[in-house]
Amino acid sequence: MATTPETAADGTWDVPALLRSLTIEQKAALLDGADFWTTEPLREHGVPSIMLTDGPHGLRKQRAGGDHLGLADSVPATCFPTASGLASSWNTDLLDEVGRALGAECRAEDVAVLLGPGVNMKRTPLCGRNFEYFAEDPLLAGHLAAALVRGVQSQGVGTSVKHFAVNNQETERLTISAEVDERTLREIYLPAFEHVVREARPWTVMCSYNRINGVYASENRWLLTELLRDEWGFDGLVVSDWGAVNARDESLAAGLDLEMPSSGGAGAEVIVAAHRAGTLRGQDIDVAAGRVLRLVERATSAPGAAGFDPDEHHALAKRAAIESAVLLKNDSGVLPLRPESTTVAVLGELARTPRYQGAGSSQVRPTRLDDALSALETAGFAELRFAPGYEVEADAPDPGLAAEAVRRAAESDVAVLFLGLPPSAESEGYDRDHLSLPANQLDLLREVAAVNEHVVVVLAGGSVVTVDEWQRHATAILQGWLPGQAGGGALADLLTGAANPSGRLAETIPVRGAHAPAAGGFAGEHGAVRYGEGLLIGYRWYDAHELPVSHAFGEGLSYTTFDYTDLDVSVLEDGPRPKVGVSLTVTNTGSRAGQEVVQLYVADPECSVSRPEQELKAFAKVALEPGGSTRVALELDQRAFAYWHGPLGRWVVEGGEFELRAASSSRSTRLSAVVELAGEPIRSPLAPESELGAWLDDPVASRLLGEALAAGPMGELAADPQHVRMMRSFPASRLARFPGVAITHAQLREWAEQANRARR
Amino acid sequence: MATTPETAADGTWDVPALLRSLTIEQKAALLDGADFWTTEPLREHGVPSIMLTDGPHGLRKQRAGGDHLGLADSVPATCFPTASGLASSWNTDLLDEVGRALGAECRAEDVAVLLGPGVNMKRTPLCGRNFEYFAEDPLLAGHLAAALVRGVQSQGVGTSVKHFAVNNQETERLTISAEVDERTLREIYLPAFEHVVREARPWTVMCSYNRINGVYASENRWLLTELLRDEWGFDGLVVSDWGAVNARDESLAAGLDLEMPSSGGAGAEVIVAAHRAGTLRGQDIDVAAGRVLRLVERATSAPGAAGFDPDEHHALAKRAAIESAVLLKNDSGVLPLRPESTTVAVLGELARTPRYQGAGSSQVRPTRLDDALSALETAGFAELRFAPGYEVEADAPDPGLAAEAVRRAAESDVAVLFLGLPPSAESEGYDRDHLSLPANQLDLLREVAAVNEHVVVVLAGGSVVTVDEWQRHATAILQGWLPGQAGGGALADLLTGAANPSGRLAETIPVRGAHAPAAGGFAGEHGAVRYGEGLLIGYRWYDAHELPVSHAFGEGLSYTTFDYTDLDVSVLEDGPRPKVGVSLTVTNTGSRAGQEVVQLYVADPECSVSRPEQELKAFAKVALEPGGSTRVALELDQRAFAYWHGPLGRWVVEGGEFELRAASSSRSTRLSAVVELAGEPIRSPLAPESELGAWLDDPVASRLLGEALAAGPMGELAADPQHVRMMRSFPASRLARFPGVAITHAQLREWAEQANRARR
Repeated sequence: MATTPETAADGTWDVPALLRSLTIEQKAALLDGADFWTTEPLREHGVPSIMLTDGPHGLRKQRAGGDHLGLADSVPATCFPTASGLASSWNTDLLDEVGRALGAECRAEDVAVLLGPGVNMKRTPLCGRNFEYFAEDPLLAGHLAAALVRGVQSQGVGTSVKHFAVNNQETERLTISAEVDERTLREIYLPAFEHVVREARPWTVMCSYNRINGVYASENRWLLTELLRDEWGFDGLVVSDWGAVNARDESLAAGLDLEMPSSGGAGAEVIVAAHRAGTLRGQDIDVAAGRVLRLVERATSAPGAAGFDPDEHHALAKRAAIESAVLLKNDSGVLPLRPESTTVAVLGELARTPRYQGAGSSQVRPTRLDDALSALETAGFAELRFAPGYEVEADAPDPGLAAEAVRRAAESDVAVLFLGLPPSAESEGYDRDHLSLPANQLDLLREVAAVNEHVVVVLAGGSVVTVDEWQRHATAILQGWLPGQAGGGALADLLTGAANPSGRLAETIPVRGAHAPAAGGFAGEHGAVRYGEGLLIGYRWYDAHELPVSHAFGEGLSYTTFDYTDLDVSVLEDGPRPKVGVSLTVTNTGSRAGQEVVQLYVADPECSVSRPEQELKAFAKVALEPGGSTRVALELDQRAFAYWHGPLGRWVVEGGEFELRAASSSRSTRLSAVVELAGEPIRSPLAPESELGAWLDDPVASRLLGEALAAGPMGELAADPQHVRMMRSFPASRLARFPGVAITHAQLREWAEQANRARR
Repeated sequence: MATTPETAADGTWDVPALLRSLTIEQKAALLDGADFWTTEPLREHGVPSIMLTDGPHGLRKQRAGGDHLGLADSVPATCFPTASGLASSWNTDLLDEVGRALGAECRAEDVAVLLGPGVNMKRTPLCGRNFEYFAEDPLLAGHLAAALVRGVQSQGVGTSVKHFAVNNQETERLTISAEVDERTLREIYLPAFEHVVREARPWTVMCSYNRINGVYASENRWLLTELLRDEWGFDGLVVSDWGAVNARDESLAAGLDLEMPSSGGAGAEVIVAAHRAGTLRGQDIDVAAGRVLRLVERATSAPGAAGFDPDEHHALAKRAAIESAVLLKNDSGVLPLRPESTTVAVLGELARTPRYQGAGSSQVRPTRLDDALSALETAGFAELRFAPGYEVEADAPDPGLAAEAVRRAAESDVAVLFLGLPPSAESEGYDRDHLSLPANQLDLLREVAAVNEHVVVVLAGGSVVTVDEWQRHATAILQGWLPGQAGGGALADLLTGAANPSGRLAETIPVRGAHAPAAGGFAGEHGAVRYGEGLLIGYRWYDAHELPVSHAFGEGLSYTTFDYTDLDVSVLEDGPRPKVGVSLTVTNTGSRAGQEVVQLYVADPECSVSRPEQELKAFAKVALEPGGSTRVALELDQRAFAYWHGPLGRWVVEGGEFELRAASSSRSTRLSAVVELAGEPIRSPLAPESELGAWLDDPVASRLLGEALAAGPMGELAADPQHVRMMRSFPASRLARFPGVAITHAQLREWAEQANRARR
């Protein structure tokens, strides 16, 4: 009895040989989990069990083993900011570092695959799970997630990019069908996955619960095989989201390799039965079982368990929290606070009892937990008074708590008021009802602002809250997101200037919830949700409808200022697959060190299809000392200019002018330039059914058809430009059918061919 | 040789006998026009040719006969306001009168069928043909169109309700596929057609050029037969829009009876060949040919030609123009003008050269034509000076013309400035690019406003223009639409107070074009346009997104004021088909006689599906003397409360509270009341696949499943309300599959059945 499988010449397992030695039942068993978190071992063949566990921003390995779904009882692990925070860092190096730390913790706990990151688009701010997702923009999400995946996997630990795909709401999440056209899929909902798969080669991809255009993601062969593997070159394993399997035989045939958690054998039975019935090919079973074996091999050949330094990871978590926070407002430079000369009222229960992560499968048991109140207490303020002010999970004010807080505020130079979403407001499993902060918190803000003109609001929460109804009461606003276990210290450092804010919004803050894309139709009905806004989510939506926003995508203040100069654009390659180099100089013009996020948006003002007003196509975060200056170089490839052409079934760069905007947010272009690209000509061959307009725009066809029409009863019309304009949408073949026109279909076909020949 | 067909016992033609006597070629010939405007006669069988001609707001019978498409050369006819004007009257009696006049003119010219009205929804203000359509609301469009149809047909002349269906843009109008879900079709795009068909029984319906969800309207059996005939009971003939036939055999089988114009025999040939090949049933040909014969019979059995009084019709056209105009703004009561004590500058080429109708198939040659300048010249002003100010078809200002106009304005008490869309800005055949007035006109307005503080803007144009960028420069704004041949006199009467404005907007004036529903994706691409906003067009859209509007749907000022009091609501019938009576008192509280349009909107704040914030469900226009008062009674039926339930495939009234809003516009509720209706319970039977939430909401199922879950590994979760909330969207059958849960599918089915039994 072997203890490890035979190896091939290159030292890897000889998987084909191993598969030949297995019965169909053994292979089917491999395709079904052993329990909640581990794969089925085949001990007599030397194939061990490996563990997959939750936690894109921290490991959630259940302490008691794999026999239950308990969410709170896991081994201690470093809790980093959730994805909405990490994304606001716009810092791929940071994401890589966080990934490495996560990977190290997994190795220490013998976890083979970390179930994350989640790269779904924030279609609407109402999605209850937005705190676990990165952004409303696919390029930003894809680049950040790829860095995280590279970091984790550099430690010999796998990742599972999720939830593949189009899982953008929690309402009816196991049954809803997302109704989306292909261009929208290709340009908005899939590119983040595509980028991670192509650039970071994740070990696994997790298929989502929902259906896409009627077909379960778990049974979607186009998605799991044709697109993911054949087109993008994915060579890893597809695992089900926990409970996402509907029909096990169909999901296997579609490309879903591993069902998790264990179906208690039910899935394996279906596989074996379908195979016996001849409806499932042995080859499909072998391919999937082979992928499980390769994953186990990969996991077991990685370096063995090692420890990690919780203090180091805590320090990294703090750095991550610092880079995640976004300074939204800072009137009259109230921030940073100068502790030694300032008396401060620290207000709000959330200062003492931080919200630092979200509810659901991503819930981590932290190695330790900082709160902002304690951190501020050690910051050397001339005087610091605390009052909780409100209860977190209440909407109605507590007059006693509020009065005490107002009293503290009145006695102090500055009031730092910690507000945020209560835990129940955002969670895996259900969506949000609205975007507002609780009424009791807003009441308190108004009362505090009435007695103190320096009110600094610090926000907690993994998803956007509207600020329009209250931001005039705040002198400064610092959005801290769900900052992980070290968030308290991070926020204190930012408030006191020990750190300089450098986060930028990865999602727009709309003026009101009703301005957001899916308002009025969210979250679908009768099992389907129409993605009616198409490409226009996030800033693409607010731009298209020229809506004011409270804070724009990409926006964020610093304690210093930056200048953009000397934009330089050069076409490195032209044609259907262009490459364009863009560089510019960024200078720190203030008196503090700081980081700027340079964003490059591309606009295509003239195109044969509708396109968003602009799209983020590159970005870079640069650190600069006061007075320091650097040259930022960015490269734009084909995808920066292309759109998905449905009828052609591929990406197309349509020639013409493109505007390149170097910007500090989607609403703040600093420098711009126009570049003309040849691209490729997009013109369909002329046919009898082509519109008159297409005929008239072709010199040859125009002459041939024009002469014939002028001679007939349409002659009068053909001579009048206004009438010609009116008739341009008529297919030539329909005009030819009109009484008395006397143009045959054969003539039209001949003329069209003449015109097409002349084009070549 | 018979000169009239044999008649049956009731005096009508014996169509079955007639059909038996015809060859297949003769029947096919009947299904194809004879030329541009007439049907094929069968003289040897006594079947004459009848004429169908354009013109929903005036007859367009080509003078030279049916051999060409010339649009300008037609017999003189009264030109009434186009549909966007008529709709703004909100006056069904007026529409009936206009219909009678149109019918009389048709009879005088021996026209059998008038090709109109057009009842397509204004999905976007950019549609180039909006001037020919009524409204952005299906109830308003349906009620007005039904009145017009009844009026025309009372004269023994048929109508052709068009363009059936979902023809809401001119771009690619012959090929585009409107991609719309069924609920949106049922609630927004079809109800106007449905109402006209059910209530006014039009002789014909005209199928549109476009495709719907991929299928040409002309080949859409669901649309032309199952819905139109089987469901709505239509018993007339379906005619193609001119050139809408694609495959003649498929269109015939789908229910398109008559192809127009003549295909020169090509269509008939396809029919005969398909019949010979066995792909087209003889029965289908007989049914369609029978419908043509019935239409010819109907037309020929109507009273013969009679004259009409052009002066009377002109007077009616003037009344219609008066009721169509909407007073949008009237600061400091600048209107009505008091001619005897006022010196006035009448400015703008459009005062002298009116735009009174649109371009395309609806273009009428008027019996006479009033212009506003001439009418104002006879109104007795203390002094009147005219200057053209700008050129109509130019965007660049003419400094000389502008200077003269400004001089005139400076010399006068009041400047009445006629502005409007140039003819090329809106037409059949192409869509609009933007919603703005030409730049030269707006420049002139600003210059005039700088020298005169009483600027009255009179607008011409068949579709909405934005006013936000300029309305602060105008003291008053009167939107005259395309007011027909008597518009000049009508506008003069309104300006001088000889008439009191009573029009109300039938479409919202958005603050900017980008706020409108389809912005960013109009008009589709690659042959398809996604109706992504679903139900949310017009005010439904601006309400859902809480967008400010410049002027709301239903809005319009009067020279008097009205009070609403004593709202009374009574449930006349409850249950699945409720009837609710609503009455209120309207009082003229001003010093002039005037008309008020009482609008009744219904809101359904709690529903299992998303619904528009409110929907117009009834309206009434009432005339009141100063101090006069009347009781307005409105009745709401099932459809006022119902939504289209897709899975059930029928209209459903979901029980609960509804808010009834008596309003003077969609944004100005004057009185409201809440009514509670039983409706019908909408609850699906429980099944193993039902979501946990549905199980927990059922007392029996909750107990059975809850006990089983509590005993297993989910017990910990089941005890925590937050976790239960998180899991509500899990189908019970998926939970049952989780490791260790040990609930079988059979158990779930048994429990579901127990629960369902207990519900009965």
